[in-house]
Amino acid sequence: MNRVFIEELPSLYKQKIKISGWIYRYRPLAKTAFIILKDCSGTVQCVADPKIINDHNLKLDDVVELIGSSRAEPRSKQGFEFDIEEVRVLNRSAHNLPFNSNVDLSDIGQDIILTHRPLSLRNEKINGIFQIQAEIVQSFRDFLRSRKFTEIITSKIVSGGTEGGTNLFELKYFERSAYLAQSPQFYKEYGVAGFERVFETGHVYRAEPHATSRHLTEYYSLDLEMGFIESVEEIIQLERELLTFIFGRLNEKYFSIFENFQMPKLPNMMQVPIWSFETCLEKLKNKFNRNDLIDDLDPEAERQLCKLAEEETGVASVFVLGFPLSARPFYTQPGSEKNCSASFDLLFRGQEITTGGKRLHTRESLEDALKARQISPALFEDHLQMFTLGMPPHGGLAIGLERLTALILGLQNLREATMYPRDRNRIVP
Amino acid sequence: MNRVFIEELPSLYKQKIKISGWIYRYRPLAKTAFIILKDCSGTVQCVADPKIINDHNLKLDDVVELIGSSRAEPRSKQGFEFDIEEVRVLNRSAHNLPFNSNVDLSDIGQDIILTHRPLSLRNEKINGIFQIQAEIVQSFRDFLRSRKFTEIITSKIVSGGTEGGTNLFELKYFERSAYLAQSPQFYKEYGVAGFERVFETGHVYRAEPHATSRHLTEYYSLDLEMGFIESVEEIIQLERELLTFIFGRLNEKYFSIFENFQMPKLPNMMQVPIWSFETCLEKLKNKFNRNDLIDDLDPEAERQLCKLAEEETGVASVFVLGFPLSARPFYTQPGSEKNCSASFDLLFRGQEITTGGKRLHTRESLEDALKARQISPALFEDHLQMFTLGMPPHGGLAIGLERLTALILGLQNLREATMYPRDRNRIVP
Repeated sequence: MNRVFIEELPSLYKQKIKISGWIYRYRPLAKTAFIILKDCSGTVQCVADPKIINDHNLKLDDVVELIGSSRAEPRSKQGFEFDIEEVRVLNRSAHNLPFNSNVDLSDIGQDIILTHRPLSLRNEKINGIFQIQAEIVQSFRDFLRSRKFTEIITSKIVSGGTEGGTNLFELKYFERSAYLAQSPQFYKEYGVAGFERVFETGHVYRAEPHATSRHLTEYYSLDLEMGFIESVEEIIQLERELLTFIFGRLNEKYFSIFENFQMPKLPNMMQVPIWSFETCLEKLKNKFNRNDLIDDLDPEAERQLCKLAEEETGVASVFVLGFPLSARPFYTQPGSEKNCSASFDLLFRGQEITTGGKRLHTRESLEDALKARQISPALFEDHLQMFTLGMPPHGGLAIGLERLTALILGLQNLREATMYPRDRNRIVP
Repeated sequence: MNRVFIEELPSLYKQKIKISGWIYRYRPLAKTAFIILKDCSGTVQCVADPKIINDHNLKLDDVVELIGSSRAEPRSKQGFEFDIEEVRVLNRSAHNLPFNSNVDLSDIGQDIILTHRPLSLRNEKINGIFQIQAEIVQSFRDFLRSRKFTEIITSKIVSGGTEGGTNLFELKYFERSAYLAQSPQFYKEYGVAGFERVFETGHVYRAEPHATSRHLTEYYSLDLEMGFIESVEEIIQLERELLTFIFGRLNEKYFSIFENFQMPKLPNMMQVPIWSFETCLEKLKNKFNRNDLIDDLDPEAERQLCKLAEEETGVASVFVLGFPLSARPFYTQPGSEKNCSASFDLLFRGQEITTGGKRLHTRESLEDALKARQISPALFEDHLQMFTLGMPPHGGLAIGLERLTALILGLQNLREATMYPRDRNRIVP
């Protein structure tokens, strides 16, 4: 007898079938036993004569097969119930679990949630976080594929950093050392020379010594790079459209998850404004009396700017364009204003979720940029020669998946949006 | 003036527009100059008065913008041509490149191809390899999403190996050591307890000391795991359907790439047979006089079995089921025959492309399996306790993306199907 999903029950009334799943709720009364069975398609109330059930000593989170039949039941939430004829236990959950999957886990510590990952993933709310995350990453790919982007897969074992040598994880690689990639930046630029438009979804690594709620040593980066652009604004416009597409899909398919987290629908991002870095400093000075910022924003400034954007546009999001060139990596294209760069951050709900920009695309300009930073171009020779092979003007961006997931659902700690978070203190499970 | 893609030209005849791309062919005759321009949407023959062109000293693989207009031209391959009014050079390719992107690269060494990756990716044939690869990975995801699988993202920094401690890359992780994951095996099993059906597409690592055409230290693994199965045959049937879906999409969208590689269309995989490991040994003995195989197949045996399968079924592919339990990892479910396992390899065109199987799903059976291998269960305590949290029966498989890509296109060396291959001797570019 093949197992059917719970969601299929309404089309199978009165037929003898098998359903499988977890005991999500269990109420053994004297005359009738009630079980809520949960599988990946939904839940159903099941009823049984206690005689059929009692010997099995069922408990929450046990894994069972139930044989029986379904029927319409207007009084139940789903509109149907399942009459159990036979129970088979497939696996037992342990006694004395620290929690069951059906409870509110807000007060359970992150450590217990992680060391019981199979159980916590079954919890509706936590399960929802990773459903949202899976949909974000897939929507990112779907949107870009529809815009002629090709997915690339690039190595995470590299000989050095893209942005200098700090915070790199060192790897023993046979007789020498290698490092874990901090970004696919160089590789996606090379990809532009072959495919024009490329994206990659994959892990990146930072040997981040701080273990705060905002830092992970391993995170998942949604990267794209696009050739033949004339200005950084084209990348900004692409991101408006990309996020509007992703958010639209999430609103459509996962609104019930937002409700579980008491979060509103996601906004249309098409009107998110661009504020120059200078304008941002002025606004921060005028509205929040911030006189301490010079060449970068801090977390407080990011929150303040989103607040201003929300007041002005209704959406707590703003592109900050034109960071000081000195605060950006060497390959950044200079902007139109003196000492400015053609690069931006996207702030959303108080945090930076994207860094992007136009890149230098000629060998000469890259050499000059390195020299201006007192770095010898010879150190980057392997990389620089790649720009003599027909490299178009290009730009791109990167979105941190965990941070975006956390902001969408209002999670305070990035670790909640990471299935197996890694920080200075944690490498298990 | 916005740039338009070459494929859009037929709908824009006689309008002044801009196209951008690479000089793919160039023939400057006395009275007319001919340029084949290539972008990510196609190629077009462009014609110009030499007066407009000559001062630019154009050469192959230069990056240019062309302003002008298109018109129908029945004599050209595409049915249209582009009349150049103005040329703008966006970037120069170097003089004395070791090859140009439009040539046959069969005789160019892999090292030169890799150190000129931006250029080699522009080559039609090599570009095709990675288009196929991108489509495989996306089709894998699309198929599984349509079957209720959820994508998961799991850590590649782990505290130990899933299959013992050999061939692990060691990482300096702050004050201690960590390792690069050889497989998401344990994590996808945990995922089953939350989502029932999960998949992951991501890198895995083996500190493989051999640098042969069959070995990489970093490869991309297409992993899936499914709960509530009763037998390993359900995983095999899923893979038949999965590969038939992927192959169907490739046949439909990328047949021209197969032609470039002189490869036939991909077969329907629904009838790929299952042969028991014992049957395979018998066949190998009877047909090829192989008396040397005991508990595993070797590459020669894999080729021989595919040959036999092709003779019998028309498709060079076979599922080999029931490898000796001792030759498989500890978490493997025993099979119905003595000393056999409920695990399989899928052989395709002479090589193993998948290992899969049903797994043990109770803590007790895993403990017994470890003890039978003289491994103390205490070493796996963190892992074993995960099986007391409501773990359904489950099984799954993993497909090596590079190997599948190589076999589809008839590439002899796995490195050809890897954008940035890593082996003992190579970590750049």
